[in-house]
Amino acid sequence: MGMQCHKKIMRGYKKPTVSIIGASGYSGAELTKILLSHPSVKLEKLYAHTQAGKKVQDIYPSLDTDAVFEPYNGETDTDIYFLALPHGEALSLVPQLAEAGKLVIDLSGDFRLKSPKEHSKYYKKDKDPDAVLPYALPELFHDEIKQAKAVSNPGCYATSIILGIAPLVKKPLKNASVKSVNCSAISGISGAGRSGKVELSFSEMSGNIRAYKAGKHQHTPEILQALDTDTFTPSFSFMFTPMIAPLVRGIYTVLNIQLEKHIPVSQIEGHFTDFYRSAPFARIRKSMPEIQHVAYTNFCDIHIAESAENGSTVIISAIDNLIKGAAGQAVQNMNIMLGYDETHGLL
Amino acid sequence: MGMQCHKKIMRGYKKPTVSIIGASGYSGAELTKILLSHPSVKLEKLYAHTQAGKKVQDIYPSLDTDAVFEPYNGETDTDIYFLALPHGEALSLVPQLAEAGKLVIDLSGDFRLKSPKEHSKYYKKDKDPDAVLPYALPELFHDEIKQAKAVSNPGCYATSIILGIAPLVKKPLKNASVKSVNCSAISGISGAGRSGKVELSFSEMSGNIRAYKAGKHQHTPEILQALDTDTFTPSFSFMFTPMIAPLVRGIYTVLNIQLEKHIPVSQIEGHFTDFYRSAPFARIRKSMPEIQHVAYTNFCDIHIAESAENGSTVIISAIDNLIKGAAGQAVQNMNIMLGYDETHGLL
Amino acid sequence: MGMQCHKKIMRGYKKPTVSIIGASGYSGAELTKILLSHPSVKLEKLYAHTQAGKKVQDIYPSLDTDAVFEPYNGETDTDIYFLALPHGEALSLVPQLAEAGKLVIDLSGDFRLKSPKEHSKYYKKDKDPDAVLPYALPELFHDEIKQAKAVSNPGCYATSIILGIAPLVKKPLKNASVKSVNCSAISGISGAGRSGKVELSFSEMSGNIRAYKAGKHQHTPEILQALDTDTFTPSFSFMFTPMIAPLVRGIYTVLNIQLEKHIPVSQIEGHFTDFYRSAPFARIRKSMPEIQHVAYTNFCDIHIAESAENGSTVIISAIDNLIKGAAGQAVQNMNIMLGYDETHGLL
Amino acid sequence: MGMQCHKKIMRGYKKPTVSIIGASGYSGAELTKILLSHPSVKLEKLYAHTQAGKKVQDIYPSLDTDAVFEPYNGETDTDIYFLALPHGEALSLVPQLAEAGKLVIDLSGDFRLKSPKEHSKYYKKDKDPDAVLPYALPELFHDEIKQAKAVSNPGCYATSIILGIAPLVKKPLKNASVKSVNCSAISGISGAGRSGKVELSFSEMSGNIRAYKAGKHQHTPEILQALDTDTFTPSFSFMFTPMIAPLVRGIYTVLNIQLEKHIPVSQIEGHFTDFYRSAPFARIRKSMPEIQHVAYTNFCDIHIAESAENGSTVIISAIDNLIKGAAGQAVQNMNIMLGYDETHGLL
Repeated sequence: MGMQCHKKIMRGYKKPTVSIIGASGYSGAELTKILLSHPSVKLEKLYAHTQAGKKVQDIYPSLDTDAVFEPYNGETDTDIYFLALPHGEALSLVPQLAEAGKLVIDLSGDFRLKSPKEHSKYYKKDKDPDAVLPYALPELFHDEIKQAKAVSNPGCYATSIILGIAPLVKKPLKNASVKSVNCSAISGISGAGRSGKVELSFSEMSGNIRAYKAGKHQHTPEILQALDTDTFTPSFSFMFTPMIAPLVRGIYTVLNIQLEKHIPVSQIEGHFTDFYRSAPFARIRKSMPEIQHVAYTNFCDIHIAESAENGSTVIISAIDNLIKGAAGQAVQNMNIMLGYDETHGLL
Repeated sequence: MGMQCHKKIMRGYKKPTVSIIGASGYSGAELTKILLSHPSVKLEKLYAHTQAGKKVQDIYPSLDTDAVFEPYNGETDTDIYFLALPHGEALSLVPQLAEAGKLVIDLSGDFRLKSPKEHSKYYKKDKDPDAVLPYALPELFHDEIKQAKAVSNPGCYATSIILGIAPLVKKPLKNASVKSVNCSAISGISGAGRSGKVELSFSEMSGNIRAYKAGKHQHTPEILQALDTDTFTPSFSFMFTPMIAPLVRGIYTVLNIQLEKHIPVSQIEGHFTDFYRSAPFARIRKSMPEIQHVAYTNFCDIHIAESAENGSTVIISAIDNLIKGAAGQAVQNMNIMLGYDETHGLL
Repeated sequence: MGMQCHKKIMRGYKKPTVSIIGASGYSGAELTKILLSHPSVKLEKLYAHTQAGKKVQDIYPSLDTDAVFEPYNGETDTDIYFLALPHGEALSLVPQLAEAGKLVIDLSGDFRLKSPKEHSKYYKKDKDPDAVLPYALPELFHDEIKQAKAVSNPGCYATSIILGIAPLVKKPLKNASVKSVNCSAISGISGAGRSGKVELSFSEMSGNIRAYKAGKHQHTPEILQALDTDTFTPSFSFMFTPMIAPLVRGIYTVLNIQLEKHIPVSQIEGHFTDFYRSAPFARIRKSMPEIQHVAYTNFCDIHIAESAENGSTVIISAIDNLIKGAAGQAVQNMNIMLGYDETHGLL
Repeated sequence: MGMQCHKKIMRGYKKPTVSIIGASGYSGAELTKILLSHPSVKLEKLYAHTQAGKKVQDIYPSLDTDAVFEPYNGETDTDIYFLALPHGEALSLVPQLAEAGKLVIDLSGDFRLKSPKEHSKYYKKDKDPDAVLPYALPELFHDEIKQAKAVSNPGCYATSIILGIAPLVKKPLKNASVKSVNCSAISGISGAGRSGKVELSFSEMSGNIRAYKAGKHQHTPEILQALDTDTFTPSFSFMFTPMIAPLVRGIYTVLNIQLEKHIPVSQIEGHFTDFYRSAPFARIRKSMPEIQHVAYTNFCDIHIAESAENGSTVIISAIDNLIKGAAGQAVQNMNIMLGYDETHGLL
């Protein structure tokens, strides 16, 4: 998009260069698409282990690039690195890149949890207590991200769920603290990655819905940590049931939040609107969110759907799992780290 | 498929005759399909106001019948009547048919609620306090159905939700009564009927999810009534959020049930298995239910998915909204009313 | 559903027993479903190599059976055998079963082609010239099937395509022989089997269409053979392009048939109606076929859509690939071989 | 997207202003999306009759704009007008806008056909012989578009079909002229517009395929005209069967082209590559096109799939019906008319 434009803007300015490690999965492809048309960075290398040697277009013909996937061998010749690797594979890479003075945005779960105990429990792998990076959910942690050289990009479910609860926990309404949260969230099937499992085949998933890992999903500790509590002695009861349904993109979250007392919908709405006043991608909506409203965008739509006399409150949030839940949010974080406008290249 | 049964019925026995009033909608078509192949009744008339005069095959070419939709003008010449009419239209018809000595299974919401106040609030229509029929959920009310000449077939969401809660409410575990239920349920789009609304078009619903009527759906009072309480002074907190997703058939229900204390999954499972021991269509499953497991069947699959230390319990249930949620259950009720085996013509 | 039939069969008559070898694929599951409710045979064994030891319900929970998949070790203790194995695996089995005096319906491509040369070219495997069974397309070869002890069930595309052309080739209209056929056919993804290939995953196939094997599909020689010609010196030009689209079931076929001269649509329609007069599952329709009209049925719907002045004719046919294109047709063949009514257990 | 960028580029240059008349349909929404992020024009007014007064975001929440739909009352205050109106409604508007010196890109069928006789036959409406604009398919008519002040944007099917045939007709291979074309094309359901017809509902179209207007579609004369012939005395036999399948976007076209003699695939491929050498959006591909390769892009992917000894040739082409088949191509035409790079704002 508009190469002449780039050159003109950048007169006397060298655009930062970017590489993606783990570029051949769905998040990597989405990152590639966004970064190719980003006006103020230059995408240079697309590293992908299993697809090394293949042209990007052979796997993603819709991407307008002649690039070829390369194996990653420790290069540090670009300014910024996005890591879109399977959980566990970033643990050794991020420190190396950070040491080399690179900006790093890691999309895995490796550096999200402060508690090695929670990490072991939910990721079935031990990790060092130091393996933690600032949790890069810009709507909550903008300043930490701005200061950071390396950040951990939130999980997709976590993004959708945290944004729908945070204003009630981070800045509680008077006498209306959160007593419990029951959360059901439906993910598009791309959330499972570019996969050849029978149970994710079109024939099995068309016309189908399937819950999984009820109460046990690895985003649980991440959500509670971002809300200033933890899974071992949580400050409120929390239960999360993820599902997949027959759509490719999106996360649709129903939050049943029990407040200490009844707060009218309009007041909660006002509170959320205030809370996210400076967050351009969090949209508090008066009508019901839909996946089609946020698909292919970096928006998180939030709607206060119901608030019963007994304090039982329903909040709905919706995102595109590959954009706001992964690649878009990663670029939003890069923008913040580079001092660009948060929305740059994302609208 | 019930061979013994055939022989008994057939010996010197004239099969009861059946008509469907409101046969051209999706529930009507599904009833037609089931009744056409039911071994022990004879489907005679298909009444449908707007489609009167058209051949059934012109609208549902997959149905193997030469029948023509007829306008209903008060005929009472068959033994059994299924009513699959829009809410409100059965109110005057059912008494006439009952008076004429017919067996009646009404699929609308008209006769479900005992409280005219609840009916007014949720159906936006007043009704007579007498306009109530036995609530025909066979897994809970088999005996009442057996005695009845006219019954009210449950709603689709209600079927799925009630069956997932009932054992814990109807026969509570010691010191483990139900304190609250938060329920999210996803319906196939056929639940909205054979409709030409833009928001139900393929282009709008593909890749989409949309919640609606959170906390306000008309099945709410029906669910609470079947669980021996009501919406005005409920014995436990209840919140229900319905959604539609891009599939045609099915209801997938996530029940977040807060029990007074923790009960292990296996114990709840055992309790449900006992409770539904004589209910052939309620299947307590050890693995996660899926819509594809129940689609085109009359089964309700139930799975105890999680039970946390604090008593927070997740139960999943799944049905086919057009079968167990409508036409199949209606035939199950007819079987019971006629003294046939409950599963006759349904397996 | 055939009540007279039941009575005749049942009086002092032991139902024939049936086994399925290769029961765990989609065709096998569909066969299981049909045979479980077939009134006049008894389904006994479900053989499946890779799934041996698993309960059928663990893989297909919608099937109402307690059966367990078993490994096949040469047993010959039931009367009838359906083989739903990958191509190549039936070659040695069928002769053994035939020798043991069993009725055999083979769903693979192994015994379809008379020409070993064509078999080698299209199946990339050599076979014996004797490895041929009667081609069991009942609408064309009813009498041969009736005589046979073992038959070869047609391919799914082949069924849909042959039935849409046969009346014009087998009983040509005067001065209107077929000069060329260009055929595009879209298959539901279940046609590729219960598969874990990335390119058949929901994420890849949702919103997608993909042609494959244009001019090279292995059903090509089968189609021409059934139409009394062959691929080496065909009596008319024939080109077939298969595609997959985002639906699970069905084959939708567009036939561009060039006739020697213009024949009006109504005359072609009449000719087809006559030709299929005694074929209960071939429906000549005046309106446009749709997959939903034939899904979950054994019908093949055929419509003469256009006939231009220059003889260019468009015929559309539609089937359910798993029913009329596989399991349903196999049971139709079994019915014929057993002397039952062709539609027995299939309506 | 990148407003700073705009300002810098445009120093001393006022960006042309643009309006869309008929902005609330799917093509209008897609135009809005593309033009909002186009670096070198300024989108000003969104006219939409039936939605006048509503915010654009109320109908298309994914669009990042605060605009409100307005009724069109003859305003001529922007430089460029896109018309995305139902057929028939542009006939009087285009001349007025052209007279006012505006650039006009009309997306309807009103000005495509030179022959009033063909227009009457296929659009069931008479029109003036003068009501013709240059046919704006840039891959074939780049120079005419560059000169024009008002153009007629091609139909979606027509774009896909013409681009797959043109090199063989416009610049025929020696002794290999085109004798006949049989064409099947599958459209995404968005091609039917934002519609509330029952037969386009999710419940009716999921798992379904339906052909329509075989041999009678209104793009037929447009296709032949672009290929220098006509429907009354065509220089080659042409038959077109359109279908809809359960996907939202895309046109997938199978062209069965009978050439006078056999030309090897590689030679045809080379010929197409040469022919489209200066056409950035026509991609001649060695692998099979898929809708997912072109969805959300302005590319037309073309693949020579098969070429039989008798000259029977299969060519596949794929586009996004809303982009290359409508809004994207319209912007491509605007770029050409304004002297911008053809791909400006489209990659």
